[in-house]
Amino acid sequence: MNKHIPLNKIKLDDPFWNGVCELVRREVIPYQYEALHDRVDGAEKSYCIENFKKAAAVVSMLKSGKSVPVYPIDRWQYTDENSDAGSFKGWVFQDSDAYKWLEAVAYSLINHPDSELEQKAKELVDIICAAQLENGYLDTLYIINDISKAFSNLRDNHELYCFGHLAEAGVAFYHATNDKKLLDCALRFADLICSTFGEDKIRGYGGHEIAELALVKLYEETGEKRYLDTARFFVTERGKKPYYFDIEQGKTSREGEYYHYNQAHRPFKNQDEAVGHAVRGVYLYSGAADVVKYTDDGEIYTSCKNIWNNIKNKKLYITGGIGATCDGEAFSFNYDLPNDLAYSETCAAIGLIFFARRMSEIDASSDYADVAERALYNTVLAAMGEDGKSFFYVNPLEVNPTASREDSRKRHIKPVRQKWFGCACCPPNLARLISSIGEYAFAENDSTFFVHQYIGATVKSDIAEVCINSDYTSSGRVEITLNPKHKMSLALRIPDWCKSVKFSAEHTVKDGYAYFMIDGRTTITAHFDNTPQLVMCSNRVRANVGKAALQKGPLVYCAEEVDNGADLQKLILDRNTCFTQDGEFLIADGWREEDIQKLYLPLSDTPKSPCKIKFHPYYRWGNRGENEMQIYIRI
Amino acid sequence: MNKHIPLNKIKLDDPFWNGVCELVRREVIPYQYEALHDRVDGAEKSYCIENFKKAAAVVSMLKSGKSVPVYPIDRWQYTDENSDAGSFKGWVFQDSDAYKWLEAVAYSLINHPDSELEQKAKELVDIICAAQLENGYLDTLYIINDISKAFSNLRDNHELYCFGHLAEAGVAFYHATNDKKLLDCALRFADLICSTFGEDKIRGYGGHEIAELALVKLYEETGEKRYLDTARFFVTERGKKPYYFDIEQGKTSREGEYYHYNQAHRPFKNQDEAVGHAVRGVYLYSGAADVVKYTDDGEIYTSCKNIWNNIKNKKLYITGGIGATCDGEAFSFNYDLPNDLAYSETCAAIGLIFFARRMSEIDASSDYADVAERALYNTVLAAMGEDGKSFFYVNPLEVNPTASREDSRKRHIKPVRQKWFGCACCPPNLARLISSIGEYAFAENDSTFFVHQYIGATVKSDIAEVCINSDYTSSGRVEITLNPKHKMSLALRIPDWCKSVKFSAEHTVKDGYAYFMIDGRTTITAHFDNTPQLVMCSNRVRANVGKAALQKGPLVYCAEEVDNGADLQKLILDRNTCFTQDGEFLIADGWREEDIQKLYLPLSDTPKSPCKIKFHPYYRWGNRGENEMQIYIRI
Repeated sequence: MNKHIPLNKIKLDDPFWNGVCELVRREVIPYQYEALHDRVDGAEKSYCIENFKKAAAVVSMLKSGKSVPVYPIDRWQYTDENSDAGSFKGWVFQDSDAYKWLEAVAYSLINHPDSELEQKAKELVDIICAAQLENGYLDTLYIINDISKAFSNLRDNHELYCFGHLAEAGVAFYHATNDKKLLDCALRFADLICSTFGEDKIRGYGGHEIAELALVKLYEETGEKRYLDTARFFVTERGKKPYYFDIEQGKTSREGEYYHYNQAHRPFKNQDEAVGHAVRGVYLYSGAADVVKYTDDGEIYTSCKNIWNNIKNKKLYITGGIGATCDGEAFSFNYDLPNDLAYSETCAAIGLIFFARRMSEIDASSDYADVAERALYNTVLAAMGEDGKSFFYVNPLEVNPTASREDSRKRHIKPVRQKWFGCACCPPNLARLISSIGEYAFAENDSTFFVHQYIGATVKSDIAEVCINSDYTSSGRVEITLNPKHKMSLALRIPDWCKSVKFSAEHTVKDGYAYFMIDGRTTITAHFDNTPQLVMCSNRVRANVGKAALQKGPLVYCAEEVDNGADLQKLILDRNTCFTQDGEFLIADGWREEDIQKLYLPLSDTPKSPCKIKFHPYYRWGNRGENEMQIYIRI
Repeated sequence: MNKHIPLNKIKLDDPFWNGVCELVRREVIPYQYEALHDRVDGAEKSYCIENFKKAAAVVSMLKSGKSVPVYPIDRWQYTDENSDAGSFKGWVFQDSDAYKWLEAVAYSLINHPDSELEQKAKELVDIICAAQLENGYLDTLYIINDISKAFSNLRDNHELYCFGHLAEAGVAFYHATNDKKLLDCALRFADLICSTFGEDKIRGYGGHEIAELALVKLYEETGEKRYLDTARFFVTERGKKPYYFDIEQGKTSREGEYYHYNQAHRPFKNQDEAVGHAVRGVYLYSGAADVVKYTDDGEIYTSCKNIWNNIKNKKLYITGGIGATCDGEAFSFNYDLPNDLAYSETCAAIGLIFFARRMSEIDASSDYADVAERALYNTVLAAMGEDGKSFFYVNPLEVNPTASREDSRKRHIKPVRQKWFGCACCPPNLARLISSIGEYAFAENDSTFFVHQYIGATVKSDIAEVCINSDYTSSGRVEITLNPKHKMSLALRIPDWCKSVKFSAEHTVKDGYAYFMIDGRTTITAHFDNTPQLVMCSNRVRANVGKAALQKGPLVYCAEEVDNGADLQKLILDRNTCFTQDGEFLIADGWREEDIQKLYLPLSDTPKSPCKIKFHPYYRWGNRGENEMQIYIRI
């Protein structure tokens, strides 16, 4: 097994990533702290901290034997309008925002110690821990509103989901600060979950997955096998009949009727296609791959591989986005990848990166890091505005602001980034991924150090000290200096977009990695040819026939109205164009059709004039006001 | 004013239309009679006749002073599951199905007397009339469920809509049979409406328009000015503030917030764009144009013309369909004409033909009949299966059956025609239009006979006996023989698709019509060049850039999977192709791209093989099982 490198052994220094990480540290984390505390003007209230404080009050009333009020638990979002003042507020999964923020803070503190921020975080940890019941249970919705109903609606409510984020935060916070308080809190909740769910116990599992991967993290941290066993139980029990979600709802579904959304339509071992809510999907698949790492479960692994291949080959946007339909924020059918109706949720791309890392830990094939790179440099980065305070939840590949305004089918497609969302999963998820990006870049086993992502850093791994100097997104040059502890090999990913690469030393190639034998201090340079290139899409994808996209290295580009005028559909790209670089832009040759006003007319050559088409990296789009955007251009 | 010719003066005989009219007479009308009586296996129940019988029972109880039960009126559709056995069933507008059937029957009886059918129709008239209250009110929903609430929710319930269809049926049935019973029933209801609504009365209007045009029909029939005045009131009152729909709902909307759907967002004189529910829209516009004919109201006329131009120039599918979005079955924004998401409801195309005829009665410009022709020969005809028993409600321009099944955004797009619908507006609407097609083909004023549509017929008009021999859809040849009562002119429409036409006599051209001076018996032949041609769409329409459609004469063609294999998006049409005719098919030259399985790859020429592309008239598509269909093909 190839293990990722813990963050405290990685010191990032990269011309491309320094700025992104700084933006997260300086802007996103403080901004989200304010949002959690409902202090951002114009943003929907989070209620997150408020809920923990209310829950803590309930906990102390219960401790002192006082009776507590009961409120209904009957919806997904509780607002000041639709629920009592004393009751839980916000979305059913609101607790997770605090956990995700703490996880991001933990990673940030490792990279960049900050005693003031650490203090704030510890205060939040105290607030959270005060809300935990003595039996370990911790979910403010049920504690505040009606604890007697705990675990009674796993399908819709998010206790196991919130637990998962708590566990991830607990582990990260312990690693960052050596403070075990939050981790212990998570372990107590985990123990309750392990003693509640299982073969001879309640045969349930979460409607929104993540507990699976979180329990494996706790297993990795503690070595306690019950966490791994429960994770495996959650994976293998899922989708068995009678459906647990039927049992808890007291009804009977026909096969395949409802639970695709939750990936609970059939047993995991019989799943080979990515379906349903995309974020839930990739969280489940990540947890399943985690289980494989420690159990060698061949059935689960086969499903993971089949599902991976299904995503990669049939359900992946060129931007690394997944989830083609807004209905259920879900995977659509094979090859259905509409540009202007895409959902492509930020969190789904993040979850895909989680899944990719786990799969590459089992088997070092470049497929995984190739897809992760696509998601990271395009959808994930695009989700954050250059101000660090505005975010895309949905990441379309084509935007017409008029359509977003006037066409209800495209109302989810926002032409500019939004402030903090009421349903705030994406921004804190983004913060925790960016802050821990090193964990996704490098890995090692006993004999090999892997560079999955070419991010400049100094890494003190178990087998070598490695220094990566990266100019990957600009010149494509990367220099890796190793100081090995013993004879070893270095594995450098050859990106799928790269037509030719020059390495400074002999190597062999296997599964998309160039392997170098390292014996003593060595410097290897790699020069990836990142000449801009036009990319086409399978003609099974109806939306993209006759069109091409521009990619340079890992970056996908797009045309924006502010650079090219309105009506981007009138642009035609010269398939033999050269490209000139102009700052962050790439300029290509093409034509612009003259406007045809008449709605229908006999076919003729539409008059067109040669023009320059200016392309902007997709991850930078939408930072200059509302405008049209298009990735695929007619050829 | 140019008046259409009454049906009893027209004897159709046309190689193209005979079959269609026969299908309606032999299959559609009898089938719909069975459907109205809930005797079609597998079709959703109509409840229509049942409702009239229940209402009649209530009426006689009321007459005899008995008290009647009350049921809630609180939804759009009442089913056996959601409402009491004794209450109204079906959609709130269910009564109109009977009226539309009677109207179709009336037209059919004029063309083709049938005493058995007439007898059945008269029995239905008796059933209907028995349900009318003494004050003239007739709507079974309110009569059965709670008459005290009559006219209290004009926005959502359809009393004025059902009245409109009753009036149209009454007029038609009187013309066909000389039996005035249904017309008198309609007039009694009209009198109640006229005494209820108006400047100094209730300032309301129907949420679903049609009463406007129906009242003008009653005015034309009776000369009673109150009908015209009320029609005009309904048009001019609409959308004034305070919004009547707010008043009746007891709330206050902000401007433009809600009532676009009902075309009641602003006063009609300030409307210049077709918005909202497309069927409602064109029914309103038709009624408004009717009012103009008899009032010369310049403001209303300007709005009608602006709205007409907006539809024709910016919101019209090549098939004559309108209503680009399924959300609200509505017009979308300008130039938003997606092929695979189209709504293009059959009834909307029918209503557009209504609107076109009224506009051409005011002003003989070929614009109107050109658009009507497009709608008639494509969307309207496509809506009916060759069995006369299956119908499209929605008429897409591109269909992928997988998407219809798997993609909720396309669930309204059916790849095969459906049996009678629960919401059954389209089939009976189609039946009444086809049965009265002569009314849309010809018109006259004191000095001119107009041929708007080239449908073979003998017409005994006020100014001439005219015999049209038409081979319009085949060879494009039409021969018109006139026997005029005095010196007159003949106006023949020059279709917008026609690049060249040969007439056998001298003529002048004005507003798209060729005018011939006729003095004594004359035969004029016209030969319209209907060579198949490729048509392109404005490049403001994003969906169609780089593509073309095939049209021959008035018929738009499409490619179907059954003729061309799956994955129609892989077809490329040779822009210089010749066409060969093969029965009803047209065969063109093109290429088929080889399948590219890989999802993303560097741009290269996709290997392709020359192929024949087989085109089928759009109106004939979907008669050979579920399959892909596409009108626009890449060039």
